[in-house]
Amino acid sequence: MKELDTKKLALEQAEENGGKFEIISKVPVDNLLDLSIAYTPGVAAVSSAIKDEPELAYKMTTKKNTVAVISDGSAVLGLGNIGAVAAMPVLEGKAVLFKRFANVDAIPIALDTQDTEKIIQTIKQIAPTFGGVNLEDISAPRCFEIEKRLIAETDIPIFHDDQHGTAIVVLAAFFNSLKLIKKTVSEVKVVVNGGGSAGLSVTQKFLAAGVKNIIVVDKKGIISESEIADLPEHHAHISRLTNRQKLTGTLQDALQDADVFVGVSGPGALKKEWIREMADKPVVFAMANPVPEIYPEQALAGGAYIVGTGRSDYPNQINNVLAFPGIFRGALDARAKNITIEMQIAAAKGIASLISQDELSPTNIIPSAFQKNVARIVADSVKKSVFSRA
Amino acid sequence: MKELDTKKLALEQAEENGGKFEIISKVPVDNLLDLSIAYTPGVAAVSSAIKDEPELAYKMTTKKNTVAVISDGSAVLGLGNIGAVAAMPVLEGKAVLFKRFANVDAIPIALDTQDTEKIIQTIKQIAPTFGGVNLEDISAPRCFEIEKRLIAETDIPIFHDDQHGTAIVVLAAFFNSLKLIKKTVSEVKVVVNGGGSAGLSVTQKFLAAGVKNIIVVDKKGIISESEIADLPEHHAHISRLTNRQKLTGTLQDALQDADVFVGVSGPGALKKEWIREMADKPVVFAMANPVPEIYPEQALAGGAYIVGTGRSDYPNQINNVLAFPGIFRGALDARAKNITIEMQIAAAKGIASLISQDELSPTNIIPSAFQKNVARIVADSVKKSVFSRA
Repeated sequence: MKELDTKKLALEQAEENGGKFEIISKVPVDNLLDLSIAYTPGVAAVSSAIKDEPELAYKMTTKKNTVAVISDGSAVLGLGNIGAVAAMPVLEGKAVLFKRFANVDAIPIALDTQDTEKIIQTIKQIAPTFGGVNLEDISAPRCFEIEKRLIAETDIPIFHDDQHGTAIVVLAAFFNSLKLIKKTVSEVKVVVNGGGSAGLSVTQKFLAAGVKNIIVVDKKGIISESEIADLPEHHAHISRLTNRQKLTGTLQDALQDADVFVGVSGPGALKKEWIREMADKPVVFAMANPVPEIYPEQALAGGAYIVGTGRSDYPNQINNVLAFPGIFRGALDARAKNITIEMQIAAAKGIASLISQDELSPTNIIPSAFQKNVARIVADSVKKSVFSRA
Repeated sequence: MKELDTKKLALEQAEENGGKFEIISKVPVDNLLDLSIAYTPGVAAVSSAIKDEPELAYKMTTKKNTVAVISDGSAVLGLGNIGAVAAMPVLEGKAVLFKRFANVDAIPIALDTQDTEKIIQTIKQIAPTFGGVNLEDISAPRCFEIEKRLIAETDIPIFHDDQHGTAIVVLAAFFNSLKLIKKTVSEVKVVVNGGGSAGLSVTQKFLAAGVKNIIVVDKKGIISESEIADLPEHHAHISRLTNRQKLTGTLQDALQDADVFVGVSGPGALKKEWIREMADKPVVFAMANPVPEIYPEQALAGGAYIVGTGRSDYPNQINNVLAFPGIFRGALDARAKNITIEMQIAAAKGIASLISQDELSPTNIIPSAFQKNVARIVADSVKKSVFSRA
């Protein structure tokens, strides 16, 4: 199916439905007795109980199962800064996926501001309503500050999916790739191409998962502590955690003897000749979408052993829908106050575990979004991580 | 059914369901094609279309059919200031009624602030998401300022149901009562007992509907322009619009020759002896709940011709659920930018019209909440009012 066709079908669907979801009541409202139970005077007893014991909200209200999907419309898909109302179809789509894959009730909230402080204050004020917040399509670097502050200033899980979602799925694909190429986390060399929020998040996850040797490459070349004076703050920070040999140079330089390439950059950023300079059995994750850093045919021609992309028309689709529904399901069920890096790594391991050793092959390192029980397995893994901390 | 029983049943229902509603998808998500239409890449076409023509949000997104039900938990039912999270069961109950009676998707939002300015700013920031806002259980006098400012500063209908909902239904009951007692709007004398937000709202509606002679009585007695120097601002304002004879005195004084009593005050505020001093065929609306200003048996013993209360176990229940679902249905369908007093009076006329001349009797002046088509008739009446302005 061509992209043009899905766009046409999406417009038709939007015109026909006028919004992708609706509310349904879980309680009967068919007579005055029903009304007096679901609403006044009966409901006063439920409110009183929660007033006396606020934690009961997690048992007796929609807070238990509800996540807000919040955007300011500043970085929507590939469309850029299109504003709040235009982001609504994306937020609604996400809400529908939350329900479909993890039975989470997600409520889109489109914000009429792109001011960092106003976004933070607004989300804080509406936080009591929700069991968690999925930040969506908020542009960097504001997204870092917004997420950090809300994690510190609210008592519910806050998760910027654009930063973390894909990174978690890449990490899952990485775990399974290592099984195939028979190398360990601590010995491999990983090159991350892209110094934006996705690249930094991938790097953070890989480091936390135990990778020792990571090089991050930005448009200007390898990020190196040796050039720290010239780096913006977020790059200076990452330069201290990566590239301990303080290499400088180009992406091609970085790729010498690398085991894994992770592209979160742009179309065509990886040349097949450079793959030949990587270590034995090179692993290539070319995540730029819809046009990847290198097409799988080209990567394989260059000697890649495993190739993953964001596209659904090639094997090994790195799809963030594998992560966020199960992560929030697990966080809600565990009543977690935040979504820690440990929980995120647990989610990646959960995703990886969905491919059994027998099924594992270079063209099957990651489950399909529609494989049964993905969200449940991920949620269980996340919950276990929460409770092992406790 | 005793109140105690409904409270027990309400707690059981809350424990069993953990929230009164859930989300369901209106679009299929069963395979990768579905995913590419409901979400990326297809959804980008819908976002782009709305970016180019924002009004399309009213056609292609949930904004079309969604109302936020927002509270700061400061004046919840008879429970008072119980806070945001404890208000959630009430907001959810309201959401369920919106859906049941008018197919409006209502989203509860509980606010973590009771600061007037913060409430206004928060609601402004999330407004793009919604087709309207139902303010709920916000204490006076903050509720006046909040509603006024939001009406001025957003482009969607804002409606504080606690102020206007019951007042609109009382007005409907009043219209039908006049048919039975064969008096006209402009000739009757109405006494409103209660100078709080509900009393002032009733007064505003009755004045706008053409009542010339209204006396408002507060705890300190009749509100009179002759004592304007001692009145708080909102009472000073109402003193200029009512009681043109500048009477002073007690509720009993006010009731001399009055045709209609509207109580939005407290239990037992009206004595049956005082009803004997009212005009021929006295009409008594005793709205305090659950214990009214006077019980119907007593009012009838005092000579009342028509009695209405807020209770479901007596005839003529003045129930705000007759109003708000149809009002928002009409406002959303007409894409009204606000809910004007004309629309509110049209809603009251719509409610009144649900009792035919043949059915009308002193014990049947107002339809049941479960009478068929209430919200549709109210919505049609509201819509007609919008379009007659245009």
